[in-house]
Order: sequence, then structure tokens, then C-alpha cells
Amino acid sequence: MPVDVVARLRSLLGDRVDTSPAALDAARADKSGHAAAGRPLAVVHASGVDDVQATLKIATETGTPVVTRGAGTGLAGGSIAGPGEIALSVRRMDRILEVRPDDLIAVVEPGIINADLNAALAEHGLWWAPDPASRDIATVGGNIATGAGGLLCAKYGVVRDAVLGVDLVLADGRLMRLGHRTVKGVTGLDLTSLVIGSEGTLGVVVGATLKLRRLVPGAVCTVAVTFPDVRSAAAASAAVTASGVQPSIMELVDAAALAAIHDLLGLDAPTPGAAQLTIQTDGPAAAGDADAIAEVLRGAGGTVAVSHDREEGERLLAIRRSMHPAIERLGTTLIEDVSVPRSALPDMFDEIARVEREHGIVIPTVAHAGDGNLHPNFVFDASESEGDGIAAVPPHIWDAADDLFRAALRLGGTLTGEHGIGVLKRRWLVDELGEDQWELQRRITRVFDPQGILNPGKVFTP
Amino acid sequence: MPVDVVARLRSLLGDRVDTSPAALDAARADKSGHAAAGRPLAVVHASGVDDVQATLKIATETGTPVVTRGAGTGLAGGSIAGPGEIALSVRRMDRILEVRPDDLIAVVEPGIINADLNAALAEHGLWWAPDPASRDIATVGGNIATGAGGLLCAKYGVVRDAVLGVDLVLADGRLMRLGHRTVKGVTGLDLTSLVIGSEGTLGVVVGATLKLRRLVPGAVCTVAVTFPDVRSAAAASAAVTASGVQPSIMELVDAAALAAIHDLLGLDAPTPGAAQLTIQTDGPAAAGDADAIAEVLRGAGGTVAVSHDREEGERLLAIRRSMHPAIERLGTTLIEDVSVPRSALPDMFDEIARVEREHGIVIPTVAHAGDGNLHPNFVFDASESEGDGIAAVPPHIWDAADDLFRAALRLGGTLTGEHGIGVLKRRWLVDELGEDQWELQRRITRVFDPQGILNPGKVFTP
Repeated sequence: MPVDVVARLRSLLGDRVDTSPAALDAARADKSGHAAAGRPLAVVHASGVDDVQATLKIATETGTPVVTRGAGTGLAGGSIAGPGEIALSVRRMDRILEVRPDDLIAVVEPGIINADLNAALAEHGLWWAPDPASRDIATVGGNIATGAGGLLCAKYGVVRDAVLGVDLVLADGRLMRLGHRTVKGVTGLDLTSLVIGSEGTLGVVVGATLKLRRLVPGAVCTVAVTFPDVRSAAAASAAVTASGVQPSIMELVDAAALAAIHDLLGLDAPTPGAAQLTIQTDGPAAAGDADAIAEVLRGAGGTVAVSHDREEGERLLAIRRSMHPAIERLGTTLIEDVSVPRSALPDMFDEIARVEREHGIVIPTVAHAGDGNLHPNFVFDASESEGDGIAAVPPHIWDAADDLFRAALRLGGTLTGEHGIGVLKRRWLVDELGEDQWELQRRITRVFDPQGILNPGKVFTP
Repeated sequence: MPVDVVARLRSLLGDRVDTSPAALDAARADKSGHAAAGRPLAVVHASGVDDVQATLKIATETGTPVVTRGAGTGLAGGSIAGPGEIALSVRRMDRILEVRPDDLIAVVEPGIINADLNAALAEHGLWWAPDPASRDIATVGGNIATGAGGLLCAKYGVVRDAVLGVDLVLADGRLMRLGHRTVKGVTGLDLTSLVIGSEGTLGVVVGATLKLRRLVPGAVCTVAVTFPDVRSAAAASAAVTASGVQPSIMELVDAAALAAIHDLLGLDAPTPGAAQLTIQTDGPAAAGDADAIAEVLRGAGGTVAVSHDREEGERLLAIRRSMHPAIERLGTTLIEDVSVPRSALPDMFDEIARVEREHGIVIPTVAHAGDGNLHPNFVFDASESEGDGIAAVPPHIWDAADDLFRAALRLGGTLTGEHGIGVLKRRWLVDELGEDQWELQRRITRVFDPQGILNPGKVFTP
């Protein structure tokens, strides 16, 4: 009875229920390049907590699946909504409710964009550290749903380190206030952490209490380094980590990714085979740290350029931040997101080279080298749909990705460092968790959502 | 059939099953000063994961409750074992299995003492940041079970920030490996965080992958300040936080606590009414930070002494670290552990003064002022036992503690910052969580432990 559901939503929520073809098609997709097999029932543009609660009560009463989304910048298909599902957008809930410079906290709604939040916080001399490459277009709620990472994590932590509490609407519409406004707090189970990275399977995040930092004083220095091959670059980044100097950012771009980015930006083609490291240091010791890092990199055989100019540093980093749009132009992408212990980074690049050889494909790869998180991109032509909610990933691509993921596991790594499981990686979840833990996790989701209406088919494939 | 349980344990575990009166009595108590109403069935001294699994299988088959303990330094009664229960000690599982300076991780067994771990890590130029006042006698497993904090949290984080993975034995004896060896990892639900602070209700932690830091280079500077009254000291600490300079440690001791400590240490009695702040700075900017903090404190009316000598600093801090033994001498204690937003610290001290006045008692209090975590101590004479697993807290003490806790909640605070709920605070848990969240949390524990044999009666009172 899909018609009844939409009518019931409309009767309560009026024109915040959107069934225009454009809105429905937008809700089928995210930034993974994949899309649901068909259109969802409706998009609800929630304007507040009440709207979210009303939507979930109707969903529970009618047994209708709900897929929560923010800005739709996810890279694993976690927020794509298909036939028979309600797409619940919290993008319009984008207010900053409170900023407390003395307590270093902010209370926000989930739809606010990272960059907008940080622009507002800067007036108070504050910032929220999570810094996904998509920070200009991604929402805080999406960051929380995926347990996002980004470029600054090795020094400034991940989302889990930067959220003190979340307000969560359960499947049945009840509102739970989880966590604290205090730095310390161990009252009962840490459900805030459990919600972070749960990809819409436990409830809808309608508010968050964020742990802020003061803006880092001092300069930002940037070290740009070129190596003749990617293994040398990876080994050099591990040497930087081992040296004890802590960069704020250390990004590695391999030759194929670099070529795609240069093409997008209209730059001259890079030296064939060459890989690039872009490293930033910040804080009072930025200049000395940059010099020490440059020394390590020269010793590792790199061609090094150091800049003490913040704007030039941003220009250099813009190359790295252009990776996703550059790869998008090549075709549909299965974006891997493996993370390995930092010392295993060179070995992981060897494994990527092996997979490229053995499977006869090119895998443009970037890495947050400071924390061992790699994004190998499997590019393919997706002209057909599998019909189960994701675009057709050709079998040879699945095979190559499978090979790569297992290599990461062998090196002590994990399937996803920051993008989440969504639909793209659910087939491997059980391989990493084991049957027992997979089942334990699925049963925990059922405590929050007994009917299984929250983002069904994501993360935990039936 | 208690006899059967012990016999079954003995047949598998031999002399690692201890029923000596001394061992049983030790397992009835922890450092809260409270004790179970009677002796447990046995103490199992597990020497490895197999022993833990064997114990839990027998417990599950016989429906016998299991209370896990480490060094027994808990302050909320979370590890005290009583009649009909198995006390499962993991204290002997104290090996460091792996240290990886290049990846900044260590893999350890749960029974290792914080101080022993850090002594071993120092040889690699590393440390594990959690720093409870009990660091010389507390175990890493106990730190994880309680979600411990300590003195360094405002700058270096709490246990949740310093654990990447835990190995957990479930109630039925199955071993789960939760979490990662990588800095980033969002594969499925974050069960590692859920286990941190779960006080033995979800399983038995038999191993942990810890996130390490490099030893902080540079000097440690100490600022010792006296204020005529505790509110001035609290306001000054909030001013330090608001100034943006980040101390590594900022401890506040009120007049009653200071008098007890001076008495224990054989020092001259302090000025009546005077409260003390002890602040440390570290890292390359330690000296400049200490001077800046001293300036703020002088402006706030404090009598300030600055020391650039590390050993003198340790002597000054030893006063703060002597708080628990000093208070122990006064009687049995109900140790509160409220945490409030840092800006609310002066108001919280006003509330403590009000509770002292209205209830006609003295509440010696110390605070981790850098993160808003207070330990008001309700001291009383416990010559009788209630018979439900804790020593008799007189009704007028419960009333005063209740008053205090509600004041903390009104100020945006929480019941426990770092000690946990255990038995001492379970009566308030529902007040903070609300009925709905309390029930949700209890149901999550049942996913891990369907029979409810893991630390029953702790945290969640039936």
C-alpha cells in the first residue's frame, strides 16, 4: 500500500513530502556513482525533530523502510533509497543551536555542512576537526552516520573522537538523548559511540553535541614531494611517521590518480609513474617540523619543495581534494577504503600493483598516508543495473576488489577506514567480522529497530 | 548446586580455582570501601584466554553469575563478588604481547598494571595516556571496564580515545575480536567503544589493542596556587580553560580534602578554608604556557608558585594523588564522581557547599578541574551491611548524595565521569538515562548475555 504511506505522510507533513521525479531520482543516488534500481516512494524534507518522529511513526505503523540522508555525499551507497522506501532527508535541519567557547562544545542539527559549521565556529576561534575531503558538501550528520575520517585524522582524530552526544529518533519515533555535554562521562553503555558509524541502521540522528578545538595558532607549512614510484612514496611516508614528527596532513597520490587529477584541472601531464606526497605541518612548531620532514623525505629519495605560505599550501592540497571529481569522469567507481597499520603501507601498494597486474586493470589510488587509509578506485562502465539497489559492478571488478580487500586483511587491516559499508561492501562484512560477530551486531540493530525498517539491506545483507 | 560448580571449575582449572577464605574475602571488596554481603563461591585466577572461556562455559551451563575483576581498585563496587557468584580474576594475564613503535600500538593482556605498561613502553619512547590516580595499582582491563579517566584527560583523552580493539569472551564462552589494529576503521558497529565502560556486563575483556603516544619531549612545569576559598579556585580553573592555554593536568583540592591529605602525609595543617590548584604544562611550550597560566591565576587572586623542576612537580602532585588513601582513613566513603561542563565548575562547588549546609555534613572534594570532573566524598561509619551486596550507606548520606547528583544534572552534568556505576550509583542510573534509554541499554546487554549471568546487579538494578 505505497499510496497510503505517502498520503499519510502528506496529511501530517504537507509539502515537506516531495514526490517530484527530480527529488526521487536524486534520492536514488549518492556520490558513490551507484544508484538504487528504482525511485523511492517519497522524499520527506524534515524541518525539525517532530517531522522525523512523525515520519518514523508512520513507517513503523505501515512497516515501511526508511533511508535517512543528508547531502548525499556518501561513497558506499549507504543513503540510496529505492522502491517501497521513504527517503528521509535531514538536510534542511542545519541550525547551530549553541556554541560554548568556554566548554569547547557546540550543539548542532545534523544537516549542517562541515564547512559552514567551521566558518561559524571560526568567529569564536574554534573548529570541529573532522575533515573529510568532501567537507565543502558533506553534513555533520553524514559524518556521524559513517564515522567519517578525512585528511587530518592522524593528528586531530576521527569523528568518534569529536562527538560527545547524539539525539537519536528510534524506528518507533521515540527520541533518545545519548551521551553527555561533559568531557568525561561513563553513565551506562556508550551508545553515542555505537551510533557513530552505524549508517542509519540504529535510528535517525537529529542532533549532536560536538567536541571542539581551538583554532591552531601559528603557520601552516606544506611539503610537496615527488617520488619516481609509489612504493618509494609509501615507504617515505612510513619513515615520516616513524620519525616521530606529527604532520597534520600527509596525502599520497599515485601515478594513475595524479594523471586523472591533472587532466581535470588542465595541468601539464605529470611524469609517468611518479607519485606525489603532500604533507602539511601546523602549530607553533610548523616550520621546524616541515624542515625535519623534508630532511626525512630527501633521505628517502624524494624531490622536495617546502612552502611556508598558507595559500600556496591550499593550492597544493587542492590537487588531492580534486581526486573524487577527477575519478568520477573516468566512469563508475567502486571505491575501496581499506586501512592498514601504517608500517604496512608500502606492502599494501605492492599488493595493489599485484592486483593490477593479475587482473589486468588500473587502480588509481590515493591514501591518507599518515593513518594508513587507502582509497583504491576500481573504475568501470555501468550501463546496466543489477536491480538489487546498486549499479552493475562487473564480475571481474568484484574479483579484483575481493583480492585487494583480502590482501588488506592479511596485512592486519580493515575493509573500510571511513566510508562505511553501505551496499558496496556488505558482501565482505562477514569475512572481516566472522559469522558470530556479524550476527551479534545484527541482533544489536534489532534492539533499536525490531521490525528492521531502518536502512534495510545496507551494511547487513540478509 | 554451588558445590557442583566449584567441582566442575576445579576439574578443568585445577589449583587456579581458589576457595581460600583470604581469596574469597578479597574478592568481596574493592577500593570503594564497600563489600558484598558474603563470600563468592570461588575465585578463578585465569592464566589465559582458555581459562576464561572454560569458566564462562561452566557458568552458562550452570546459570552461575560471573564477576570479573582485575586488581580490585574500582571505586563503585563494580567488581565485588558475593554469594553464589564466581569471581573471575584476570589479574595474572598481564603480558605485553606486542609493541609496535612504527604503528603506535601495543597489544596487551588485561591484567597488566598501567604503571608497568608505561615503564615497558618508555623503553620505546612511548606511553599509553590513560592516567587514573590509581595508575600504580590499577589494570588496563579495569581501565577499559570502567572507561577510566584520570588526571591527563583534558589534554590527552580518556580510555575511549586510546583503545582500538578488544578481545571479548561472551557469556557462553565464545571469543570475539572487536575493533582494529588501524587508526581508522568503521567496519560495522563500533563494539569496541560499547565494551569500554560496560563494567563486565557484556563479556570478559581478555586482550586489548591500545593506541599509544610518543613520550612528550621537553620540560614539565608545575604551577601550585592557593586560593582563600574553593569557589575562587574553581573560577580560576575555568578562567585557565577559557584562556586557551592547555595544561596537561589541572587538579583542584578543597579545604577538607587538603586537611585530610596533610594529616596523612604528616605535613603542617593548611590554612583553614584554603583550596589548592595544582597545574602542570608539558611539551616544547611548557615554560611559556606555565607563565601564561600563572598570570591568569594571579589575576584571579591566587597565591602562585611556579616550578620548572620535574621532580618538585611530582612531589606537588603527590599531594593530589594521596587523596584516596587520605579519605579512606576517615571512614567508609561514598565517592561521587559527577562531571559538569567546565564553565559550571564554580556553580557546582556552590552546590556542594549548599548540600554540606543543608545536610549538616562535610564533603571533602577534589576535582579534575581541566575537564569538570569532581569527586565529592561522603564519609560515614559502615559497621553494618545491608545484605544486598554493599555496605550500609546511611539514609542521610544517600539523601545528600542524591541532592548533589541532581544538582550536577541541572548544571548539564552527569552522574559518573570515570568511576562507573557499579553498585554505588545504580539507583540513579535511570534518573539520568530515562526509562526508555535504561531499558534499551539493558536489552543490549542481553544480546551479549541472554541469561544475565555477567555481573548481575551491577549497573542495571533489576
